[in-house]
Amino acid sequence: MPRLGINCDCGESYGRLSVGQDALVIPNITSANIACGFHGGDPTTIRQTARLAKAHGVACGAHPSLPDLMGFGRRVMDIAPLEFTDLIIYQLGAVKALIEAEGVRCEHVKPHGVMYAMLEREDLASAFGDAVIAVDPGMAWICESKGVAAAVARRLGIRVIAEFTADRAYDGDGKLVITRNPEPVDPGFVVDQVRQVIETGSVTTNVGTRIPVTADVVCIHSDTPNSPDIASAIRTFLDSVT
Amino acid sequence: MPRLGINCDCGESYGRLSVGQDALVIPNITSANIACGFHGGDPTTIRQTARLAKAHGVACGAHPSLPDLMGFGRRVMDIAPLEFTDLIIYQLGAVKALIEAEGVRCEHVKPHGVMYAMLEREDLASAFGDAVIAVDPGMAWICESKGVAAAVARRLGIRVIAEFTADRAYDGDGKLVITRNPEPVDPGFVVDQVRQVIETGSVTTNVGTRIPVTADVVCIHSDTPNSPDIASAIRTFLDSVT
Amino acid sequence: MPRLGINCDCGESYGRLSVGQDALVIPNITSANIACGFHGGDPTTIRQTARLAKAHGVACGAHPSLPDLMGFGRRVMDIAPLEFTDLIIYQLGAVKALIEAEGVRCEHVKPHGVMYAMLEREDLASAFGDAVIAVDPGMAWICESKGVAAAVARRLGIRVIAEFTADRAYDGDGKLVITRNPEPVDPGFVVDQVRQVIETGSVTTNVGTRIPVTADVVCIHSDTPNSPDIASAIRTFLDSVT
Amino acid sequence: MPRLGINCDCGESYGRLSVGQDALVIPNITSANIACGFHGGDPTTIRQTARLAKAHGVACGAHPSLPDLMGFGRRVMDIAPLEFTDLIIYQLGAVKALIEAEGVRCEHVKPHGVMYAMLEREDLASAFGDAVIAVDPGMAWICESKGVAAAVARRLGIRVIAEFTADRAYDGDGKLVITRNPEPVDPGFVVDQVRQVIETGSVTTNVGTRIPVTADVVCIHSDTPNSPDIASAIRTFLDSVT
Repeated sequence: MPRLGINCDCGESYGRLSVGQDALVIPNITSANIACGFHGGDPTTIRQTARLAKAHGVACGAHPSLPDLMGFGRRVMDIAPLEFTDLIIYQLGAVKALIEAEGVRCEHVKPHGVMYAMLEREDLASAFGDAVIAVDPGMAWICESKGVAAAVARRLGIRVIAEFTADRAYDGDGKLVITRNPEPVDPGFVVDQVRQVIETGSVTTNVGTRIPVTADVVCIHSDTPNSPDIASAIRTFLDSVT
Repeated sequence: MPRLGINCDCGESYGRLSVGQDALVIPNITSANIACGFHGGDPTTIRQTARLAKAHGVACGAHPSLPDLMGFGRRVMDIAPLEFTDLIIYQLGAVKALIEAEGVRCEHVKPHGVMYAMLEREDLASAFGDAVIAVDPGMAWICESKGVAAAVARRLGIRVIAEFTADRAYDGDGKLVITRNPEPVDPGFVVDQVRQVIETGSVTTNVGTRIPVTADVVCIHSDTPNSPDIASAIRTFLDSVT
Repeated sequence: MPRLGINCDCGESYGRLSVGQDALVIPNITSANIACGFHGGDPTTIRQTARLAKAHGVACGAHPSLPDLMGFGRRVMDIAPLEFTDLIIYQLGAVKALIEAEGVRCEHVKPHGVMYAMLEREDLASAFGDAVIAVDPGMAWICESKGVAAAVARRLGIRVIAEFTADRAYDGDGKLVITRNPEPVDPGFVVDQVRQVIETGSVTTNVGTRIPVTADVVCIHSDTPNSPDIASAIRTFLDSVT
Repeated sequence: MPRLGINCDCGESYGRLSVGQDALVIPNITSANIACGFHGGDPTTIRQTARLAKAHGVACGAHPSLPDLMGFGRRVMDIAPLEFTDLIIYQLGAVKALIEAEGVRCEHVKPHGVMYAMLEREDLASAFGDAVIAVDPGMAWICESKGVAAAVARRLGIRVIAEFTADRAYDGDGKLVITRNPEPVDPGFVVDQVRQVIETGSVTTNVGTRIPVTADVVCIHSDTPNSPDIASAIRTFLDSVT
């Protein structure tokens, strides 16, 4: 098994309005999903995030969202698939241009917020994939290895980067337990989950069952209050085992 | 001289995007200028800020802005006076309704960001005053006691609450030294400025001259990193002298 | 049965971006629902619409929307009821202030676009009613006389203005046949529907069944391409029978 | 002198909010400046405009704006040059991706609204040029052949497409007479201006003086009420002389 990467949402601040702790998190991750302006990420923040990522050798990707700054892209919106494709192309094109302005490639894409779950709908996943192919068929799509999104990506010939979310618990249905206003998460719990995935290829859910997990990257959330500590703990752990 | 109040911008966060430290500042101030949605302040944040202010006996007011969330209301925009009046009425009406939904009165208005300085233009100050009168002629207008804004307010019969900004230096022209990305300010410096105003009715500029100051309230900035300490220091000082 | 009013959405243009034909429609209606800035309606357009309505003796009301200018308030968004209440208070307060700046009362409220149908959910209808009561318990709520919204309004003590939509067909379930990009509608068809409601208290659906209808106002859509002709035809008809 | 092209702003509608008459204008022009979402132009409108342009063999370009949908990009905003570059890169990247999704190249860029005049400031013109080079140094920049913008473009190695505005008068200072809410313009006047430019290399100002004009394209405004007639009249004239 190749070494796991560490992936995190970044660049979500918007002018003076801020979220996340990019300067403290980015040094310890390997790939950054940069917001595209629809849930956060004004153009200058996007570019500065790409610059910071580049300085730390962190791969840059796009983190498109539903158009809902007020709701931070976390409120389901009913968007027609054709319009959805256009919304994603717009965002990917914008962020790709700003990343490339820093001399870096936009290597991957990961949907933000509630859109991540919405891509379990086949028509929206296909619409999303159409956008990726229109902008750059070489971009990888970060998603869970099982599920509709990954299946659609593979069918369309888009490379999948399988992710495992380490800083949240999984429930009995294998879904992440999402909290709207996140509290600090014990770095020990996070590292234990990562260790279990590496050693056993599985994670223990919050009801005690075990589900198989295949992952190329470990995902952490930037807006967990202690996200820098979490990034650092995972990094230290991965350094110790590889 | 009656006891000085302490005034601060509040409620400027926007969904998950945040600025300021309202929960720590509000307990030590006497009046809050609540953002109106144009530079910050989504409806739920506005209402929760009014609720918090009410819980601490802090007077609520409106803090309208240019329509520029990305620029946090700090970029001059060239707006025609008639349209400017409508922009302000819209914001005052919106925030007043949310404040009143908490059973509190919207007592005052203070322009945000670069609009504060723009109201030294007579036509814009008049347009602003027209909006205040249209919404509630009983609202007070927080501004510097000298200058065009105060003169226009008085001419229109709007009560002026004169403010002195304690957490920034004044330059030789009597203008505030504004910093875009503020650094922490020494609470001792702030208290010294407040003491000087109370004892001498003047402040010392950053070139060593002294300018007369008349003030009903001391203004502090919510986005100074140590704004809670500053609010607390002023409060403690005012408690000690009155 | 008292004479039917004619109600129409108005003030939905946004700066230079335009929709509707207010100047041609308003002279023939009796009540205008004025957009509140979230799906259309910049502050100056709102105010000018109130002025135009006043000049023609047309009652002014608020027409709040989901926050989705790009989607014109026609895309379902999943909003928590408490936040929904605040979103509505914000809009009602803003529009009420601009209407009152023209010396007119904001007499009613009618939800815009997909929000109209969303208020068949009990929790959202209650959240909407809470906003109306917070802003002005004397405002009337325009909705269909049957259904959850009307029931909630009555339970909360809010006056209901029952509406019948004349420029769209009803389907077999009694629901309006909504078209996203409306085509012209035959004014003869519209007048026939109004006549049938007046004479029989019922309307014939597009599958040939008849459903009972109780109405205080006839609703027409401003964005039907020939909405001025439709308003005029209904007005002429109502003048001829009353 | 090679045959003059005809250039027009397009794709400025935003969802259901509309401006311009693209379907009637595009068949008679040779290059379209497509809005980028900041003053108009939602993603689907952008893409459909590119498709329509392609169908008529019309070259596609980007039409970036200040971030001001409410003011349609016509209100001066004071933006720092570095942030300005990022704002332009964002828009160019977004529109380029949508144009390319239709299999067409984004060939040129033309600043929208008041930004056009703002680029007579050397620092902003340079910031704009930096954005063009970052996104695609092969894009041409449509501007007046004299003036700061053209000089900066040439210094940066960006190809200039010189434009002459045919549907507005020039004043004695050689500046366009801009009207905020445009009225219909006599196509005969427009054609006469084009003829004069071709035959004499000059245009007569509204004070009777003549100024030299060098042009590759004739620019018309999409929001002139009779823009389709104007486009058609110029096209017919150019067909008759070449």
